[in-house]
Amino acid sequence: MAKIAVLGYGTVGSGVVEVLNTNGASIAKRAGDTIEVKSVLDLRDFPGDPIQDKIVHDIDLIINDPEIEVVVEVMGGVEPAFTFVKKALEAGKSVCTSNKALVAAHGPELLEMAKERKLNFMFEASVGGGIPIIRPLNQSLTADEITKITGILNGTTNYILTKMSREGISYQEVLKEAQALGYAERNPEADVEGYDACRKIAILTSLAFGNTVKFEEVYTEGITKISNEDFAYAKELGCVIKLLATSYSKDGKVYAITAPFMIDSTHPLYNVNDVLNGIYVHGNVLGDVMFFGAGAGKLPTASAVVSDVVDCVKHKGKNVMTIWSSVKQELGDTFDETRRFFVRIKGDDVQAAKAAFGEGQVVKVDGINGEFGFVTEPMTERAFEDAKDKVSVISRIRIDDTKLQ
Amino acid sequence: MAKIAVLGYGTVGSGVVEVLNTNGASIAKRAGDTIEVKSVLDLRDFPGDPIQDKIVHDIDLIINDPEIEVVVEVMGGVEPAFTFVKKALEAGKSVCTSNKALVAAHGPELLEMAKERKLNFMFEASVGGGIPIIRPLNQSLTADEITKITGILNGTTNYILTKMSREGISYQEVLKEAQALGYAERNPEADVEGYDACRKIAILTSLAFGNTVKFEEVYTEGITKISNEDFAYAKELGCVIKLLATSYSKDGKVYAITAPFMIDSTHPLYNVNDVLNGIYVHGNVLGDVMFFGAGAGKLPTASAVVSDVVDCVKHKGKNVMTIWSSVKQELGDTFDETRRFFVRIKGDDVQAAKAAFGEGQVVKVDGINGEFGFVTEPMTERAFEDAKDKVSVISRIRIDDTKLQ
Repeated sequence: MAKIAVLGYGTVGSGVVEVLNTNGASIAKRAGDTIEVKSVLDLRDFPGDPIQDKIVHDIDLIINDPEIEVVVEVMGGVEPAFTFVKKALEAGKSVCTSNKALVAAHGPELLEMAKERKLNFMFEASVGGGIPIIRPLNQSLTADEITKITGILNGTTNYILTKMSREGISYQEVLKEAQALGYAERNPEADVEGYDACRKIAILTSLAFGNTVKFEEVYTEGITKISNEDFAYAKELGCVIKLLATSYSKDGKVYAITAPFMIDSTHPLYNVNDVLNGIYVHGNVLGDVMFFGAGAGKLPTASAVVSDVVDCVKHKGKNVMTIWSSVKQELGDTFDETRRFFVRIKGDDVQAAKAAFGEGQVVKVDGINGEFGFVTEPMTERAFEDAKDKVSVISRIRIDDTKLQ
Repeated sequence: MAKIAVLGYGTVGSGVVEVLNTNGASIAKRAGDTIEVKSVLDLRDFPGDPIQDKIVHDIDLIINDPEIEVVVEVMGGVEPAFTFVKKALEAGKSVCTSNKALVAAHGPELLEMAKERKLNFMFEASVGGGIPIIRPLNQSLTADEITKITGILNGTTNYILTKMSREGISYQEVLKEAQALGYAERNPEADVEGYDACRKIAILTSLAFGNTVKFEEVYTEGITKISNEDFAYAKELGCVIKLLATSYSKDGKVYAITAPFMIDSTHPLYNVNDVLNGIYVHGNVLGDVMFFGAGAGKLPTASAVVSDVVDCVKHKGKNVMTIWSSVKQELGDTFDETRRFFVRIKGDDVQAAKAAFGEGQVVKVDGINGEFGFVTEPMTERAFEDAKDKVSVISRIRIDDTKLQ
């Protein structure tokens, strides 16, 4: 019998309990031992809930319980999660977490602590919810040098953009609807400003390239300024608009960005819609591989957490995670990246646009007057910034030309 | 220094050597040790090839070499591969293979042998080429009861069907072209008759459900009878035709089939084209997850083999694979499965078709005369077989209605 504790009895925490109850027998077979939730830390009580008699309000009751082998941290936020996780590792307990804020801020330190103690610190659920991506990067794509990762890593914004694209409803309206359905938080900032996706690409990039990407240094733009006009032009171009979080290595440098991009139907993530997440990985010998699935939600996320618990129980006494080094990964300057841009330009001076952005492509949409759309030639972000003041730009969206190879 | 031997210096074997040469440094970091190919077994010599001085013609030189820790079997076919792999395991060496024929025929026995000896028998490359699917099923989706697996598991047939669909060229012509390009073998039977996909779904199903699916018992139909008329009707219906290998559990029974299916644009595998493979997995708590990528090819396959070697080196002395039991998995009767069918019917007697197959849907294609297409209501295979003699059926294709959930 392997005993575990769950820190936080919210959506994911109650999901973990539910998954262990539902699939206990098959989980025991795979872990080589039955797994029992011994304690659940929460500030609240849950009278009537079968878990009530396991609720504790004091973390030390868990830390000091020698029976508890694995601690599941699903509270979210950096503190007090960070303090609790460190205490758990110091007390000889492996830790599994769904907390991307914690992993993005303190991943290498916690991985190192676990390794020194022959424990494991696992975080499959921190990126891509139920989609297996951390373990594949860590254990499957080990023969490859990863050269590029591009993900749709945030279900809330993907839901909003999909709905705007399909139904022509404004951002504000769709956001309200998403909030009513529980797909978006009352304070949606972390999702819609791209902060959530930014932390996730920082984690994936750190794992893929081996050094620590500081999420604060990843250039990040959200989706709040995307308009229905943008989608009308996108449609005319056979494109959709997605919040991509992407990184790649080029000439020894690593570049990373989180921002809305236009992508066409040949892009590997074109069909990742609604709350789905999708992650595209390119390896130097493997070529392209993609992972799609439920990027969030109570049970998919809990499924990923429990798969980590199974791994911890199965590998008791043996560290199996690849360390990513605490050495900081220097990022290339976003201004040096080359890509195409879509711009909306006031007026009708196509020649001025061509003078600014190169031959490019003009896009007109019936019913949108007093402006035109323009797709630039490939140019650096710096060149674009220099050129854009030569015309009257209403808005611009980057274009990602990744193709299956 | 971990020393390995490679059995077979063909496409995959030379790929393994190339991957280890290309990415040696990063592979060493992940494995915790440098990996060196000490011996390569082949009947041939390779004068001028850097590997020549490692070539041996006698398996016993490898089996009796105590320095060799891991044996890579990439010869293909059941014998002598099976004998060699057993000898290697008996001699205390872990084995990694890309050989689906071997795994489908003897997987549980070899897994058991490895486990008893604290070795590993790994076969990531046997299904889906470079796509990580064995390890995710084995180590990531451990919190779930898998309820359904559907894959496009054969690149050759997917290339042929994609080309037929896009360009309206006949099966025979596309096959010739595929053979010229090296995408199809001179004797293409294993691919085009579905035998390859059938072995792969037998492996995945065995892993997912824990007992041994005998591939000989999986109902299997190939693509040789698919015509351009079928594609014309499919297009009219907004569908494509794919060779699917699929299994699912229902009411305690497991059903499996390999056959061409019509699927529409809402199907998770609709966009898996050319030589790509795609695998859809449904778990009872995870929901849907999909894996896409290069299902074959020298380097992607070698990448998967080498990732297994890394795992074997990393986990020396510890068995990490889930065993699938040698207990035979009884399969439900294909005749009991319910689905819709597309049928081409001679003449114009729609009423007779409706009497036979239910209300359904009539499909007409400009330029195809003297017949009509008909999509039946959902019915069992048995009911379909009984009904089909009531009209003059030219051909029928099953329809798979899997949707993202």
